[in-house]
Amino acid sequence: MAIVLHELCGADPEIRFSPFCWRARMALAHKGLNYETRPAPFTEIPGIAPSAGRTVPILTDGDRTICDSWEIARYLEETYPDRPSLFGGGGGFAISKQIESWVNASVSSVVVTLVLKDIYDCLAPADQAYFRETRENRFGRSLEAVQEGREDRLPSLATALLPLHLTLKHQPFIGGDTPLYADYILFGTLQWPRIVSGFPILQPGKPVSDWFERCLDLFDGLGRSAKRVVAA
Amino acid sequence: MAIVLHELCGADPEIRFSPFCWRARMALAHKGLNYETRPAPFTEIPGIAPSAGRTVPILTDGDRTICDSWEIARYLEETYPDRPSLFGGGGGFAISKQIESWVNASVSSVVVTLVLKDIYDCLAPADQAYFRETRENRFGRSLEAVQEGREDRLPSLATALLPLHLTLKHQPFIGGDTPLYADYILFGTLQWPRIVSGFPILQPGKPVSDWFERCLDLFDGLGRSAKRVVAA
Repeated sequence: MAIVLHELCGADPEIRFSPFCWRARMALAHKGLNYETRPAPFTEIPGIAPSAGRTVPILTDGDRTICDSWEIARYLEETYPDRPSLFGGGGGFAISKQIESWVNASVSSVVVTLVLKDIYDCLAPADQAYFRETRENRFGRSLEAVQEGREDRLPSLATALLPLHLTLKHQPFIGGDTPLYADYILFGTLQWPRIVSGFPILQPGKPVSDWFERCLDLFDGLGRSAKRVVAA
Repeated sequence: MAIVLHELCGADPEIRFSPFCWRARMALAHKGLNYETRPAPFTEIPGIAPSAGRTVPILTDGDRTICDSWEIARYLEETYPDRPSLFGGGGGFAISKQIESWVNASVSSVVVTLVLKDIYDCLAPADQAYFRETRENRFGRSLEAVQEGREDRLPSLATALLPLHLTLKHQPFIGGDTPLYADYILFGTLQWPRIVSGFPILQPGKPVSDWFERCLDLFDGLGRSAKRVVAA
């Protein structure tokens, strides 16, 4: 039975925008594994594998079901050790956790405010109701208010990404000469606005956007060929 | 001939406060190598090894001279591969560069504003003149103005350290169950204010300060036993 990756989707099931699902998709591609994807709107996630978890990505591999992007990456590394490594050894595995923490705490927290209303706009009606209620409760403001004035927060994003800018003076990927899961963690978070929004968040021609373009090219352009709400 | 680590010092040569020198000191201890340290006031650094570089740490090992904390860690890993690894493999080495970039860009940039005047106060007169001129030129303000209102910037430091807070929910060190050079990078940056200042920057009893205390305990309390401007 093929590996199946359940991914968040918009009203159009081909719109796959979840940063965490992109991390898992890139990890599968890095391992060179065959897999199928299945679209899951927000309100249908709880029915996929109720005992495994209530968030996507959810990966099924034979009789195994794994929930959570980090756990999926770890599972793939342990289960397919003869395939290209996602972490480059035990130190890389441990330190990648800090990269995940950095991206989630310092980058995603800015990115979400740039496209929160755009995410809403790409969802089906039932998911829109769920999304508006849960996110407005989390932010304490309307989706529109969160996203408003986003141009003014681009310098904050650039500041949050300054560590990558510095790293790229020394190597083309966080993983060194070639990408590792650490790269896919950040890639997923930046692919998220690219899929759901026409609002450009990276300044073209700079080291960070050049890195992002390299990531889009990986695996025969897996990330670049994904359907977007706004055609490039 | 013993390994020698040239470290920045204050008016009191036993005050060793440089974050970069602490990274190198911890790397040497991690490798279990015998080494001597030599104090170097700011204005005497250029005379240590003019062809190697104009900053400390500078490490000499036989006829080799290495400048820059990152290069020293790399040198030790390559030269003493049978000793405990600083990176835990090739992935760990590459990804540690991103940890260094994160600490330098997002953490050190806040920490320096908390203790800039305190650093000045611990220097010998000739170094004070050099430090005031170069740092006031860099910041565009007096040392006093940079440090003023530092209590108000503690929340910014906590935000900058939030990624570590998240990681520590999963593992006791950035390196996993045991520390790696990635830990020492951040440790050095937090040891810096601890040595030169009585101003507490970490909230006690929290995961981040607990991690820092664990780092201070390493190698028979190497970090904890270092002389401070203000006795604990």
